[in-house]
Amino acid sequence: MPKPRETKGERTRQRIRAAALHSFRENGYDATTIRAIADELGLSVGVTNYHFASKNHLVQELYLDVQEAHRAAADPQLAGETRLIERLRIVYSAGLDQLEPYHAHAGEFLSAAVSPRSPLNPLSAESAPAMAITLGLFTEAVEGAAASGVPDDIRRLLPRALVVSYLLLALFWVYDPSDDRRRTRRLLDRGLKLLGGVLPLARLPLLRGTLRDLLSLVDEVRT
Amino acid sequence: MPKPRETKGERTRQRIRAAALHSFRENGYDATTIRAIADELGLSVGVTNYHFASKNHLVQELYLDVQEAHRAAADPQLAGETRLIERLRIVYSAGLDQLEPYHAHAGEFLSAAVSPRSPLNPLSAESAPAMAITLGLFTEAVEGAAASGVPDDIRRLLPRALVVSYLLLALFWVYDPSDDRRRTRRLLDRGLKLLGGVLPLARLPLLRGTLRDLLSLVDEVRT
Repeated sequence: MPKPRETKGERTRQRIRAAALHSFRENGYDATTIRAIADELGLSVGVTNYHFASKNHLVQELYLDVQEAHRAAADPQLAGETRLIERLRIVYSAGLDQLEPYHAHAGEFLSAAVSPRSPLNPLSAESAPAMAITLGLFTEAVEGAAASGVPDDIRRLLPRALVVSYLLLALFWVYDPSDDRRRTRRLLDRGLKLLGGVLPLARLPLLRGTLRDLLSLVDEVRT
Repeated sequence: MPKPRETKGERTRQRIRAAALHSFRENGYDATTIRAIADELGLSVGVTNYHFASKNHLVQELYLDVQEAHRAAADPQLAGETRLIERLRIVYSAGLDQLEPYHAHAGEFLSAAVSPRSPLNPLSAESAPAMAITLGLFTEAVEGAAASGVPDDIRRLLPRALVVSYLLLALFWVYDPSDDRRRTRRLLDRGLKLLGGVLPLARLPLLRGTLRDLLSLVDEVRT
């Protein structure tokens, strides 16, 4: 028995969505058009526009798809790890794994998304549902860690700062021409080592205020 | 007596350059075209192309113009200031002042420049002469400071890390919708306060290694 919500309209919507995700991965942002998808599926542009008003709406489906895959890849690994830095490594690495198939076309997506008024900008209202998944993953990684010795005020500020660092790492990844993105992985590795060295210092009164200032500074960037 | 190098060709080149800089500021990146400049000056597209092979070449003139103005604004102020943090404030602030007239169109420039293969990317070979001015200013700000107590190894790593932070601040500035870019100025102010708090700690052996790691991490980004 088909699920009750799977009407003909819903099936058409899913076909358009699947064709768009495939085209974004294989052909990139620039070459993926509503018209090409309609042609491929034997639909009119009117029908595709009824389901997705613009290409931007299809990119939001892509963002959600990538972030849901990110969560699905990270969650089982998080279940078996209690150390904070290793939990963070899982979330960052699983995210990079999900991005990898899009690397050849990443510059096109970046150009389209980077403009402040672009609905594809990760900080836009339109992208909020996908970004909420990312924030949820980093929050889970921090909250689920065993006694890390990190003071509560620092701990509360961490997830948002980690999301900003993840966006900057993704920016670096776009520019990384090395095989298997070795340089991005190395940057991540060094950043985590540094964080592992700095966080325990947060217990020193002298540094706690400074670290809190740094994390709130990052929070400033987000708003 | 006219300067010997100011031939008719050179005068034409300067007219094209001036018209392009004016158009970038008033009309933005997208609306500035070689054809429109040629029309405005009563030149053929062949003549403009002889002097500047593409719009990208004109943007490089803009980068150089902005960075030379940055240097001209910062240098006299640096002459009267010996404190490291205040010298850095001068360089960052003078840079933001120079960027300000382009804020309305900054998103267009960012979209055009952000792609990894774009010659307009600040890290591209084409943009190296303009970026060298920026690096020179931060080097001068660091080297010319009175006894800052910052260890030599940290001091040597600082200028490149400051350039990366300046690019990130400029990225934040593009997104800043506040009046007079108040939020960017506040972020700069808080960042400088933080740096002023962290740098003296570089003398503590425990932190010196960590700080050096952080600065080399930023250096990794640049290469």
